[in-house]
Amino acid sequence: MVQILSGQTIQEHASRNSCWIIVHGKVYDVTDFLDEHPGGSKIILKYAGKDATEAYEPIHPPDAITTHLPVEKHLGVVDPETVVKVVKEVTEEERRRQALIDARPPLAEVLNLHDFEAVAKAVLTDKAWAYYSSASDDEITIRENRLAYQRVWFRPRILRDVSKVDWSTTILGQNSSLPVYISATALGKLGHPDGELNLTRAAGKHGVIQMIATLASCSFDEIMDAAAPNQPFFLQLYVNGDREITRRYVQHAEKRGVKALFITVDAPQLGRREKDMRMKFVGDDAGAEVQRGQDVKKNEGVARAISSFIDPTLSWKDIPWFKSITKMPIVLKGVATAEDALMAYDAGVQGIVLSNHGGRQLDTARSGLEVLVEVTTAFRARGVRLPSPTFDIFIDGGVRRASDVLKAIALGASAVGVGRPFLYAFSAYGQEGVEKAIQIFRDEFEMNMRLLGARTLEEIVPEMVDASALRSHYGLAPDDKLFASAYQPLALAQFKNAKL
Amino acid sequence: MVQILSGQTIQEHASRNSCWIIVHGKVYDVTDFLDEHPGGSKIILKYAGKDATEAYEPIHPPDAITTHLPVEKHLGVVDPETVVKVVKEVTEEERRRQALIDARPPLAEVLNLHDFEAVAKAVLTDKAWAYYSSASDDEITIRENRLAYQRVWFRPRILRDVSKVDWSTTILGQNSSLPVYISATALGKLGHPDGELNLTRAAGKHGVIQMIATLASCSFDEIMDAAAPNQPFFLQLYVNGDREITRRYVQHAEKRGVKALFITVDAPQLGRREKDMRMKFVGDDAGAEVQRGQDVKKNEGVARAISSFIDPTLSWKDIPWFKSITKMPIVLKGVATAEDALMAYDAGVQGIVLSNHGGRQLDTARSGLEVLVEVTTAFRARGVRLPSPTFDIFIDGGVRRASDVLKAIALGASAVGVGRPFLYAFSAYGQEGVEKAIQIFRDEFEMNMRLLGARTLEEIVPEMVDASALRSHYGLAPDDKLFASAYQPLALAQFKNAKL
Amino acid sequence: MVQILSGQTIQEHASRNSCWIIVHGKVYDVTDFLDEHPGGSKIILKYAGKDATEAYEPIHPPDAITTHLPVEKHLGVVDPETVVKVVKEVTEEERRRQALIDARPPLAEVLNLHDFEAVAKAVLTDKAWAYYSSASDDEITIRENRLAYQRVWFRPRILRDVSKVDWSTTILGQNSSLPVYISATALGKLGHPDGELNLTRAAGKHGVIQMIATLASCSFDEIMDAAAPNQPFFLQLYVNGDREITRRYVQHAEKRGVKALFITVDAPQLGRREKDMRMKFVGDDAGAEVQRGQDVKKNEGVARAISSFIDPTLSWKDIPWFKSITKMPIVLKGVATAEDALMAYDAGVQGIVLSNHGGRQLDTARSGLEVLVEVTTAFRARGVRLPSPTFDIFIDGGVRRASDVLKAIALGASAVGVGRPFLYAFSAYGQEGVEKAIQIFRDEFEMNMRLLGARTLEEIVPEMVDASALRSHYGLAPDDKLFASAYQPLALAQFKNAKL
Amino acid sequence: MVQILSGQTIQEHASRNSCWIIVHGKVYDVTDFLDEHPGGSKIILKYAGKDATEAYEPIHPPDAITTHLPVEKHLGVVDPETVVKVVKEVTEEERRRQALIDARPPLAEVLNLHDFEAVAKAVLTDKAWAYYSSASDDEITIRENRLAYQRVWFRPRILRDVSKVDWSTTILGQNSSLPVYISATALGKLGHPDGELNLTRAAGKHGVIQMIATLASCSFDEIMDAAAPNQPFFLQLYVNGDREITRRYVQHAEKRGVKALFITVDAPQLGRREKDMRMKFVGDDAGAEVQRGQDVKKNEGVARAISSFIDPTLSWKDIPWFKSITKMPIVLKGVATAEDALMAYDAGVQGIVLSNHGGRQLDTARSGLEVLVEVTTAFRARGVRLPSPTFDIFIDGGVRRASDVLKAIALGASAVGVGRPFLYAFSAYGQEGVEKAIQIFRDEFEMNMRLLGARTLEEIVPEMVDASALRSHYGLAPDDKLFASAYQPLALAQFKNAKL
Repeated sequence: MVQILSGQTIQEHASRNSCWIIVHGKVYDVTDFLDEHPGGSKIILKYAGKDATEAYEPIHPPDAITTHLPVEKHLGVVDPETVVKVVKEVTEEERRRQALIDARPPLAEVLNLHDFEAVAKAVLTDKAWAYYSSASDDEITIRENRLAYQRVWFRPRILRDVSKVDWSTTILGQNSSLPVYISATALGKLGHPDGELNLTRAAGKHGVIQMIATLASCSFDEIMDAAAPNQPFFLQLYVNGDREITRRYVQHAEKRGVKALFITVDAPQLGRREKDMRMKFVGDDAGAEVQRGQDVKKNEGVARAISSFIDPTLSWKDIPWFKSITKMPIVLKGVATAEDALMAYDAGVQGIVLSNHGGRQLDTARSGLEVLVEVTTAFRARGVRLPSPTFDIFIDGGVRRASDVLKAIALGASAVGVGRPFLYAFSAYGQEGVEKAIQIFRDEFEMNMRLLGARTLEEIVPEMVDASALRSHYGLAPDDKLFASAYQPLALAQFKNAKL
Repeated sequence: MVQILSGQTIQEHASRNSCWIIVHGKVYDVTDFLDEHPGGSKIILKYAGKDATEAYEPIHPPDAITTHLPVEKHLGVVDPETVVKVVKEVTEEERRRQALIDARPPLAEVLNLHDFEAVAKAVLTDKAWAYYSSASDDEITIRENRLAYQRVWFRPRILRDVSKVDWSTTILGQNSSLPVYISATALGKLGHPDGELNLTRAAGKHGVIQMIATLASCSFDEIMDAAAPNQPFFLQLYVNGDREITRRYVQHAEKRGVKALFITVDAPQLGRREKDMRMKFVGDDAGAEVQRGQDVKKNEGVARAISSFIDPTLSWKDIPWFKSITKMPIVLKGVATAEDALMAYDAGVQGIVLSNHGGRQLDTARSGLEVLVEVTTAFRARGVRLPSPTFDIFIDGGVRRASDVLKAIALGASAVGVGRPFLYAFSAYGQEGVEKAIQIFRDEFEMNMRLLGARTLEEIVPEMVDASALRSHYGLAPDDKLFASAYQPLALAQFKNAKL
Repeated sequence: MVQILSGQTIQEHASRNSCWIIVHGKVYDVTDFLDEHPGGSKIILKYAGKDATEAYEPIHPPDAITTHLPVEKHLGVVDPETVVKVVKEVTEEERRRQALIDARPPLAEVLNLHDFEAVAKAVLTDKAWAYYSSASDDEITIRENRLAYQRVWFRPRILRDVSKVDWSTTILGQNSSLPVYISATALGKLGHPDGELNLTRAAGKHGVIQMIATLASCSFDEIMDAAAPNQPFFLQLYVNGDREITRRYVQHAEKRGVKALFITVDAPQLGRREKDMRMKFVGDDAGAEVQRGQDVKKNEGVARAISSFIDPTLSWKDIPWFKSITKMPIVLKGVATAEDALMAYDAGVQGIVLSNHGGRQLDTARSGLEVLVEVTTAFRARGVRLPSPTFDIFIDGGVRRASDVLKAIALGASAVGVGRPFLYAFSAYGQEGVEKAIQIFRDEFEMNMRLLGARTLEEIVPEMVDASALRSHYGLAPDDKLFASAYQPLALAQFKNAKL
Repeated sequence: MVQILSGQTIQEHASRNSCWIIVHGKVYDVTDFLDEHPGGSKIILKYAGKDATEAYEPIHPPDAITTHLPVEKHLGVVDPETVVKVVKEVTEEERRRQALIDARPPLAEVLNLHDFEAVAKAVLTDKAWAYYSSASDDEITIRENRLAYQRVWFRPRILRDVSKVDWSTTILGQNSSLPVYISATALGKLGHPDGELNLTRAAGKHGVIQMIATLASCSFDEIMDAAAPNQPFFLQLYVNGDREITRRYVQHAEKRGVKALFITVDAPQLGRREKDMRMKFVGDDAGAEVQRGQDVKKNEGVARAISSFIDPTLSWKDIPWFKSITKMPIVLKGVATAEDALMAYDAGVQGIVLSNHGGRQLDTARSGLEVLVEVTTAFRARGVRLPSPTFDIFIDGGVRRASDVLKAIALGASAVGVGRPFLYAFSAYGQEGVEKAIQIFRDEFEMNMRLLGARTLEEIVPEMVDASALRSHYGLAPDDKLFASAYQPLALAQFKNAKL
């Protein structure tokens, strides 16, 4: 029988020696857990004896607390009448953020996916922005993902009747109104109270496929429950050290109708994301304390805190087991070389995603677009015909324009995953933002296919791009600082007595 | 019989329910047209019951309203005595713009074509600047057009008697004092009240050939009427969905003496030009309304608003028809690959323009200069001798110096089209600006041919350029931001107690 | 018998005609030495008749004064009771520096090696920063050292069980917890009162090997005395013109247990380091005087002042002699071409360091990483199997990430030397800084090896990197300044009435 | 008999209708010359009826006025007692310039040649700076000249006895203490009252060879008269349309002992130097007037104004004539291709300078360094052994370091011309500046030869450089402005409450 506790009783346990908290109306004794909390004890103690739901929710998978805390620490439920609401002090920064939300550009003025990022940067909390935008180490790869597309140039064809152009396709057998799927991103509630449901609703309305993330802040079932009839989904999987948890998760997803399983293979450990790590110290003034303890484990930002369960032993030997537990097509997400692409093909999975995890894992790994050329070359050298009816090659990372997608398709991709732009879209404007993003893609696909002279995606052929500069990721030799200081640049004609 | 209406009567129709406007002294009932107006209803309602001529004129081809509005909505003419002049409020921005016009650098201080652009940027209205300067998507191609020229280097020859140098030529059989023609650009009245006539007068005076744009703000006949005796013209053609309109337009032009027909083939749909699109929202405060309606069609800027008639079905099959309706030489404007260049040759037209439409259509398309090398290589591989007496290869885009033109000629172009620089020249200084631009070209051709050691354009040979870097359009790999922040650049010797 | 002198007596010799100073309690007559002092006479005269120890210590090797001054100028010891302490005036700049030291980011917030440099730049004296950070001429090579690493991209492998990864190794037979050794850097006391002992203590605690510099500010024996039992060391050697001094120094080191001898071969003369040279004039207001004299020798900064003993005659002929005086493995530090690498191999030494002396010697010399590929290619062409059991190839310069080290190992390096980052670490935080730097390396090695799919350093193979861009140290062609001024970049969507 | 005129009489002729001026004590009637003056009439009218010597001197070759004005306009000499001195108003700008001269860094703080440029920029008049620093068109080539050197990297050799290094050489049979000669630059008095004599005196003192410019502000004989005994000179020649003038000039030079004749072959017309041209309008407020007249000829800056005599008919046919009038070795200055280099060799001259005239002639011409590789390759392909005892290859342009010179020598140059750096040196510090520049070269040669492992210039071999990137003058593809705006760079660790 569940015990009912009063707010007053709980408030008495508000110290390091005895620390109770309320989450979603339930009461937990977290005293012994304080030192194990990946996010540090400080943040929990802030809510000692109080309701921590609001702080808990956007960062934790819904079942995090019940999974990590022994049953005997689940003390009961709180009598809601007796809880004193934590009056959250509105900081100056928060006030500024609210003003920015009010001043957002109207959605009609958002002309491209970059605009969503600009708006999201302004209206997100610093913590959410740091978590979403960060990538690993020097953030070389995240930027390379974008820049790679601009090293591929178009060779458009003329004088074809392009009055009708069609960019719809099927992805792993599912209809999709775009050659784009919504790639998995974590912790959607950091950006918007409805979290990933913004994606679900917009995707359902516009015939786009959403890949559900293991680390979504909405639970898997919440998302499925929000789906339109027959709305297709893919599932992104971080494999748990406890395979039984993974088996249950995958089979549950299949039962609820998920259409394909994307196993993440590039994250035996999550990357160092320093923007995210720095946020640990801001607004936390835990600096001094942490410095004393030198407990590095507690400094690793949101990303690592939520991912400790991921199994680093995962290997090719596990593939048959996955095939044994599900009939869904299996796709390996995070392949980065031709060698591994061929191994995946030989292992009998249905596809791969050439991905570097949005630049969040190994820094200075190459872009998916560059690897795509390596992979298709290797497949052809092996005599595999492309596109293959039984094996799909996807890429993700850095896409901001329909023209990017068309370049990837010209080079052999079946479809392209887009993650952050949709995340920024709902962070900035909720579901309407996601719909607008889809609309932008539609407008751009229509225009670009016409201008390329291609009526269908099949007509997007390799000859339509010049990818000769794709592999040339040159950095510059250092410049001559003294020469540059001494040189006086040319100036344009000057106006008299007038400031431009 | 034409009805005469009084200003008072017209003023009574000043609402969404009944909306009459005056244009060029005629009265139109545009009530039913409000929702179809490509530029949105808001701008029309501003002039409901009033004279809209001043706002109408620079943006619309002269016959736009008569073409789009059914005859029964042409109500009659206004009695000019009875019209109350709309007193245009002079905004702060407009006042500033007028001050800048007064402060323009004297024309003598304009030393190069870049200067015209700098002056035009300052003295144009924001709307005109946005329309003229904008290019598609990320504006990669418009910049590449310029940068491509700087990847071609000269190999000048010495010790040749260059006391006399001659850069005159013939283009499609017409004499031209420069190996440059004035390429078609639209909506000249946005930049100057005389619009394209500035070009006509200057071209006539200095023996340069003007290509007349389908979307000129001056009507075709106005331009022809302003011509000097025997002044040669080319015609740029957007092909109308209604071929009869096109036939009449082309045959009328031929009758009036136009010497060649340049059919635009790279614009089945006009590109997304985001600078232009953003202007829709500025000074229009239509943001909120538009957002509600999500009517994307109405957000597309000036460019798309005026181009809805262009036919996306245009294809190679139409070429024989064009040959059947005119004896003018036919040139395809907007070829972007060797494949299509050869198809054009086989189709029996008289030439092609390697062009990406000034970067305004497909972004990340390559520069005409780069395509030129691909094309001449392919022609030679096919055994076509170049230069060919029956087939001319032109290029346009990015030219700012006579040296650019000479590079193009060395690589095989017959002549080069120059558009925006002349447009900026008359926007800044009217006809005198265009004449000065021509004079700058003359000075630069004289100097550069002397310094190259070429007395005639025939002596501009491929060996005079090193184009080995032309295809290398590399972007840079991302830089190391932390390293760059931590590194302290060298400094020059410092002055004591003195500011430089 | 040692004479005891009173402070008062010494104070009487405070002029250019008779100049005595106290260093470490001993009294010296430096009158005749004033004009020979590599650092100029001015700085000595500042301490004429006074105790100069504090200024002397961080810049001079401990025995500098006794070596350079004839015995008859060693006047005796001072009676400490009688010395009037020089009250050092605290300058505004010094006060600012102290405030910055107090405001240092807590060590826990240091996330990478760049952070140490940023902190050190702020908390070091200008003189120390200039000496440490400077490199030769235009500082092209020091920056190239860093940038070279970013021209090598990873090819990570997936689905390998990486639950356990091990990055320990042996270097020249000595165990090392990292594939990194602490490379020799000079004048540690400029950065921290404990100087190089910070390195010794941290290295001992964490199983890392320190290379002791000839120009360390702590004496060789001080360092050895601070070592943990069996802590391994290498010795960096500048060869003295007087070979007997070198012999004694090397044999003493061997006797005290040093494990390898790294002979610097790229410094017959120290490079022009202009940041360091400029410091001569700042805070010294010697400008005017020096200008008169035009005595260039006295303007050469700290680096040259302390290195005049280095022997420019050192040549291959000397190698047998080194082999005759020590049984330690001999490594040549500063090899920069395949030719010399092969000569070193043929000369029978045990290894080489491909190094450009941290960019402090010949500017526009190539990075060690680039030379590494040249060298391994040449060795393989000669039939030498790599890695060789009898010959090690090290590199140094520009390393800031464990991923850099792994790239070097993939390309054939046995281990990598890291100098400045450790120097900056103790300048900013003392021994704890060095320990933190080692910890950062550990965290990064763990993560990067997992993400690369390598469990041991042996599994770091050449196929894991794409070094195709490594040799491409292109500078850019000059840009078009007028075009860049005239072009108006695209802007993101704007917020209304709000500052971001 | 010479007429003596009083100041009062002269003052009466102070208008456009009758305009007399005094230059060097002589009186000229320039009324008819006003409209022909290459520098415009305005500047002359400023001195109408007055003494114009001060304005005349730095810009005109000494005999300009006597050559251009018919004898009958030479009215006589002025009675100096009667001349009212023009009191030159000291402008604010001039006051500022004087303050900067006083605040110059002491010469001892000048560490490199860039420093001279920085000081000269500050202390020169705007007109002088514009004339000296300007180059043609977009100033691409002038910058490329510098950047080319940084695309060549060193391959230094180790363990050679470099206790003695020697960088002296002979140039065209003359001893030179440096492998560098002082190249010809014009109008030295704009920079310093002693003009080119600063070079002469420093060159004489330090064993360096000066090339005397046709357009020097000091007359040829003044320079020769200032020479040390046996000081060697070269002569730079602009060939006059009147060959007799050229013959006299050359033979006079030979008689006075000049050792070689450098004929400029890349300047049939002087380039457009827009910085220089812009200066015409500043401080001249002639803008309005000039605009009216559209007289382009009068807008061309100092450079063209002084060079109208240069003969554009000069061709290979003239070479035998030069050989007939002098026994001096003949060198063609301004060769830019292998083809012309071979023609020069075949024409029997003694050498060539691979030069683009300091970037002042044809813009986007390649650097001398790049052409050098093309030329030596072509010579070797022709079987010409290099270095040749009868034919020398020089280069100039962009040199700022001794290391640059060594790179050129490694690639086959006999010696290198250095122009602007010496010009800036005396503009900033007079003769002492030039001596310091020579001293800097000496220091840098010593250091760099030691670090390269070369004891003599003969030991500077091609293998000591990696020039593989030299030809790769890539510009960058345009960047993604929106992406760059939206991306937030990584930041270093932050100090608390402290400004760095």
